[in-house]
Amino acid sequence: MNYITAGESHGPQLTGILEGFPAGVLLDIDEINRQLSARQGGYGRGNRQKIEHDTIQIVGGVRHKKTLGSPIALVINNIDHAHWANIMDPVATETERNTLRKVTRPRPGHADLIGGMKYGHRDLRNVLERSSARETAMRVALGAICKQLLKQLDISIVGYVEQIGTVKALGNRTTDTKEIVSEISQNDLRIIDNQKVAEIHELIDEAKKNGDTLGGIIRVVVNNLPAGLGSYTGWNTKLDAKLAAAVVGVNAMKGVSIGDGFETAGQFGSQVMDPIDWHKETGWTRTSDNLGGFEGGMTNGMPVVVFAAMKPIPTLYKALQTVNVETHLQQKANVERSDTTAIVPASIVIESVIAIELAKEILNTFEGSNLERLKKQIADYRQEVRDF
Amino acid sequence: MNYITAGESHGPQLTGILEGFPAGVLLDIDEINRQLSARQGGYGRGNRQKIEHDTIQIVGGVRHKKTLGSPIALVINNIDHAHWANIMDPVATETERNTLRKVTRPRPGHADLIGGMKYGHRDLRNVLERSSARETAMRVALGAICKQLLKQLDISIVGYVEQIGTVKALGNRTTDTKEIVSEISQNDLRIIDNQKVAEIHELIDEAKKNGDTLGGIIRVVVNNLPAGLGSYTGWNTKLDAKLAAAVVGVNAMKGVSIGDGFETAGQFGSQVMDPIDWHKETGWTRTSDNLGGFEGGMTNGMPVVVFAAMKPIPTLYKALQTVNVETHLQQKANVERSDTTAIVPASIVIESVIAIELAKEILNTFEGSNLERLKKQIADYRQEVRDF
Amino acid sequence: MNYITAGESHGPQLTGILEGFPAGVLLDIDEINRQLSARQGGYGRGNRQKIEHDTIQIVGGVRHKKTLGSPIALVINNIDHAHWANIMDPVATETERNTLRKVTRPRPGHADLIGGMKYGHRDLRNVLERSSARETAMRVALGAICKQLLKQLDISIVGYVEQIGTVKALGNRTTDTKEIVSEISQNDLRIIDNQKVAEIHELIDEAKKNGDTLGGIIRVVVNNLPAGLGSYTGWNTKLDAKLAAAVVGVNAMKGVSIGDGFETAGQFGSQVMDPIDWHKETGWTRTSDNLGGFEGGMTNGMPVVVFAAMKPIPTLYKALQTVNVETHLQQKANVERSDTTAIVPASIVIESVIAIELAKEILNTFEGSNLERLKKQIADYRQEVRDF
Amino acid sequence: MNYITAGESHGPQLTGILEGFPAGVLLDIDEINRQLSARQGGYGRGNRQKIEHDTIQIVGGVRHKKTLGSPIALVINNIDHAHWANIMDPVATETERNTLRKVTRPRPGHADLIGGMKYGHRDLRNVLERSSARETAMRVALGAICKQLLKQLDISIVGYVEQIGTVKALGNRTTDTKEIVSEISQNDLRIIDNQKVAEIHELIDEAKKNGDTLGGIIRVVVNNLPAGLGSYTGWNTKLDAKLAAAVVGVNAMKGVSIGDGFETAGQFGSQVMDPIDWHKETGWTRTSDNLGGFEGGMTNGMPVVVFAAMKPIPTLYKALQTVNVETHLQQKANVERSDTTAIVPASIVIESVIAIELAKEILNTFEGSNLERLKKQIADYRQEVRDF
Repeated sequence: MNYITAGESHGPQLTGILEGFPAGVLLDIDEINRQLSARQGGYGRGNRQKIEHDTIQIVGGVRHKKTLGSPIALVINNIDHAHWANIMDPVATETERNTLRKVTRPRPGHADLIGGMKYGHRDLRNVLERSSARETAMRVALGAICKQLLKQLDISIVGYVEQIGTVKALGNRTTDTKEIVSEISQNDLRIIDNQKVAEIHELIDEAKKNGDTLGGIIRVVVNNLPAGLGSYTGWNTKLDAKLAAAVVGVNAMKGVSIGDGFETAGQFGSQVMDPIDWHKETGWTRTSDNLGGFEGGMTNGMPVVVFAAMKPIPTLYKALQTVNVETHLQQKANVERSDTTAIVPASIVIESVIAIELAKEILNTFEGSNLERLKKQIADYRQEVRDF
Repeated sequence: MNYITAGESHGPQLTGILEGFPAGVLLDIDEINRQLSARQGGYGRGNRQKIEHDTIQIVGGVRHKKTLGSPIALVINNIDHAHWANIMDPVATETERNTLRKVTRPRPGHADLIGGMKYGHRDLRNVLERSSARETAMRVALGAICKQLLKQLDISIVGYVEQIGTVKALGNRTTDTKEIVSEISQNDLRIIDNQKVAEIHELIDEAKKNGDTLGGIIRVVVNNLPAGLGSYTGWNTKLDAKLAAAVVGVNAMKGVSIGDGFETAGQFGSQVMDPIDWHKETGWTRTSDNLGGFEGGMTNGMPVVVFAAMKPIPTLYKALQTVNVETHLQQKANVERSDTTAIVPASIVIESVIAIELAKEILNTFEGSNLERLKKQIADYRQEVRDF
Repeated sequence: MNYITAGESHGPQLTGILEGFPAGVLLDIDEINRQLSARQGGYGRGNRQKIEHDTIQIVGGVRHKKTLGSPIALVINNIDHAHWANIMDPVATETERNTLRKVTRPRPGHADLIGGMKYGHRDLRNVLERSSARETAMRVALGAICKQLLKQLDISIVGYVEQIGTVKALGNRTTDTKEIVSEISQNDLRIIDNQKVAEIHELIDEAKKNGDTLGGIIRVVVNNLPAGLGSYTGWNTKLDAKLAAAVVGVNAMKGVSIGDGFETAGQFGSQVMDPIDWHKETGWTRTSDNLGGFEGGMTNGMPVVVFAAMKPIPTLYKALQTVNVETHLQQKANVERSDTTAIVPASIVIESVIAIELAKEILNTFEGSNLERLKKQIADYRQEVRDF
Repeated sequence: MNYITAGESHGPQLTGILEGFPAGVLLDIDEINRQLSARQGGYGRGNRQKIEHDTIQIVGGVRHKKTLGSPIALVINNIDHAHWANIMDPVATETERNTLRKVTRPRPGHADLIGGMKYGHRDLRNVLERSSARETAMRVALGAICKQLLKQLDISIVGYVEQIGTVKALGNRTTDTKEIVSEISQNDLRIIDNQKVAEIHELIDEAKKNGDTLGGIIRVVVNNLPAGLGSYTGWNTKLDAKLAAAVVGVNAMKGVSIGDGFETAGQFGSQVMDPIDWHKETGWTRTSDNLGGFEGGMTNGMPVVVFAAMKPIPTLYKALQTVNVETHLQQKANVERSDTTAIVPASIVIESVIAIELAKEILNTFEGSNLERLKKQIADYRQEVRDF
């Protein structure tokens, strides 16, 4: 399984192709749209989200809602493109009028300056249109499809927010995904601890008033993965490493940890490892899950727990210091419409990319041409592992 | 550029092949051996390191010390194999005698149990021989070769220890690699802050006495990378994501961050971004480096800074609780000879894998068939970027 | 550079994404459409081509006709989908009415039967909709874009027909692409030898009358590729091998040869090799081109010549013997609307996939982020090779 | 599954690493050596084969003859290296004496000239040492291991010679691999038709006398592959295309065909396709095998038949015209010790690379961590396909 996305933030559409997905999966289209909608929500978002109401169009690889085994092609139209039709027209000839909104004051923290250097763009709009987090809408749609596959294999996943700016909302750190989903649906911050909502709202309001922005920390939990996904045998076969790449591959992510991560660095070995246990009825298990469900780069059958650290959004209304690429004079950076914090949607994006990566590993491991065969093979495998 | 390694911990040798490396690089063999030797050092190591004195043999891709452009084949002999010749013989027929040291009590935190399940091994030695960190010796050798290429391109890199167990030794967090190398060579902990040496020695001694183990945190700094390595255009083209995978792909690594990483999650946008500056003589620069030299998944010309969190070694002399895979009875885990902490060698391994990943990105970006052409192309590119 | 395509033959559209293409290439949209139109032409085509008039839509990666360096997304609408809207609706619920045209009599020579087994489809339409050569329209569009890049690098390419059924039309086997283009545009068979047109028309008419089909042989010539693309150093780095895969990866292709190919097998070494020559003004050259421009898996600066053998189309109006997958009874195979021969369009498809593969190799070899830098680097490289 | 090889023709050794091979395969080491020995045989070979007596050393991934699931590392020592120890020393400093045998007269048809240009070598020995077909010894060893896996899955394969120079020895073109193996072992040409042996010997003797060389055509037959390997869904998922690349990736191969290949181009569709049949006891089959066991890029359950066209060896004792790279003056090409024809060993090499590619496809398709699970999954799959 693999995927590519294309599309600019204010271009006509986002396009995604997912290849190697099994035939025979009956897709719940509404559920994909619910995920897209959730990505547009959250306290602290800007006005763009009021313009877009993302819905998915399926234009390949699916017939009568069922996947065909051929590549799945997805489209999300950019409703905002109507306002940018000239400026972002793919095929109109360049004119003075349609190049008016040239961006020449690169925003620190964004790809603007370096993208311009690398690709030879003097109008940095040519960079930011692609480097924009708008692209993650497509990853959420692709992730929604992968989550429907995981669900068929009895695997559940949720990503949510644990920290916004300096305020932590850890809750009880359960690994019960059902409980987590229930908790986080009770507020507009996708956090477990409802008590912290008011404090965080205030922090976001304050940041917004100051033209400033906020980042945060995301936690993802995955339940019931078969043990033994990934492998210790090669430097590039470890599944936790692939998850780390998927996380840092999302806009604004600056850190990732598996299980207790950086905390384990300060503990003794006797505190960190998860003792092995076995019961006749249920097979092999652990009495703790400090390692986040991974040993030797392989899933160990315990819940997978991944953390992602998101930097604040680099587009500040209180603009940062920069240098104009045309004049080489110091100026304030360009201000593109933006959010105060995108941690809530980012938690869905991270959930999505981890779902994609896990589906990919499962499909690259087992014969995944069609769902029924895949289910049968994984059931056999689970039984074999239980009987070890 | 790409590489594969092979070899078991007590097998005859480690083998590595590096393909796509430029022709015309004059290798400093002694320097490769110095890196191997450094990996064997550090306070808190066990007895294995007294047996092995790793040196590299080059058996392909090099003639009269100069690389040929063909795949480079490396060998590190396992001196300890002499003691394991029967038990680990690749081609002797299995007998009762040569399978005596069967491992049946999987160590929590290691690949033992899950590797056994996945590959169908009832003797878990078949797992641990490969999942052992012994393999990282080859990655250090490959990294040493890549570092010699980076040096030819005026890129310097160093990885060192910032924290062992609970004790931090941050120093001044300079990004001057020369200064760092000078500082860390003054102690056997590869730390900057000499004042902390005694305290850490004590901590390690204490852990050892208790049959316990320690992890830590590693910092890597890279200087003078050209701006624009990596790309924002795709989910899998971001170089920081590739570095994250390389780090988590090293044994025992549970977390990675780029620049200030998890700390940026708790800061305001105005504190985090690195303002853009420009000077006629030197071109584009930043007035800070909080983002660790990456924007939009691309190097931005500032020092690259990466942190890695290592869990404590999972082999404890005070053995953990486990279950015997033959009897399904609870027992103490197997004890394989091991270190109290491997954070010092791990800092060299992390330095090495980041060097490999950077060399790979450079060679996949530019025409890297031979060194002179590569140098010329990168010099042209640097000039172009400076003139932007 | 890489690409994926998606889309079913009677689905709403074909979708393609091309990633890693340089920024700054001014696209000639009309030229892309001309290629699509050429693919629909040729003597011996069926009625589908009268329905479709393929034109390209660009929905990503291009702004004001110029490539951005971000992934390029292309759409070709299936006009025929209007007649199949219910049957091929991606998201309508399955009903008795929209599954009427079930295919149960697999056509020998097509993917029908095996695709059904592999993906678990009892309605073989789910296979043939994707395995159809309709998909090659998108490869022609992608190839047209790659050819515009090659043109910028002064590389010319043409694919044409040398044999249809038993009738050969070899002409003088020139490697002058301009001359070839001029010759083949004078008939509807894309052959060089106008004298053979009548004979071939007759053969096609005869085959059509008999409900039979024809294949043929295609020749592709590429001029002015830099010497040294590809490499002898690894089993998977040889460019001629990649071209072979690209050719056989096109529907109905059963053979490929580089230069004189199978003929060289019957000759003496002294007849086959291309003697090396050198002139002060022009540098290195050869006095013949029997090896089709490749030595050691690398381009050698001579014209690249590739042949492709296409089997006849497996959809016969005089239907072949098969077995119904529902009843297991012998029957005549399903007849889907089809051509008598598709050798003319196939010659454009083969030209396209070779153009794609060559562009890919060039972009994977040189720093190809933007066109100007790429042109400069290749010019430097050509000079270096000339001065060898 | 994947592999890399390294090593120069007169360097100390060839090295190969095979990753992703299942655990639990009991290797027959003698059988690997027999394959290596067979590759050294055949009428028309030069003196090098009398020096080398290739045998395999296994230095990783195997314990007590059983594969571990970790990467398998192989070594073949170059006995001839003893005579070249100074000249090809990897780590000795360059001196006047150890660079005496400089090659400056590139041989047409070999990689010499272009390799020199690409990698910047003025001593073309640096090219020819790697581009030499000596490297294929390692591919034969790797292929021997893959063939042992195929055998465990009841898949048989054989490659042999059908034509040498102008003399064809087609025999009855059976697809019975047992029968073929029996026939070809009766002569030193690896041909089926014993009647042709004398004629071919004479041809080879004649060519040798003239300082000339010969190529030929190879046929490979594979029996009992499961139907449905490969896929029609993408341009790069077709297994026949991968086989084509594997074939052309072998030194001197200039053409490849699947089944009747180029012949099908001249036939009617009604003659080419393989009618589908079904029997209660045996399931689905065909009444002919003109398409070489492939439809839609997938195996269709019939014998796979692949042809490879090999050009004559480009090293001629009657040396070809060339130009000295130091003086730019016309000269006779360098003469390196060589064979009159290498078609016999090449037939084993082609058999080997096809075995590797098929094992790779099987392991990338099914869960191949250990042999027993793989056997079980493939048995289930075969049953499912039979019951379709």
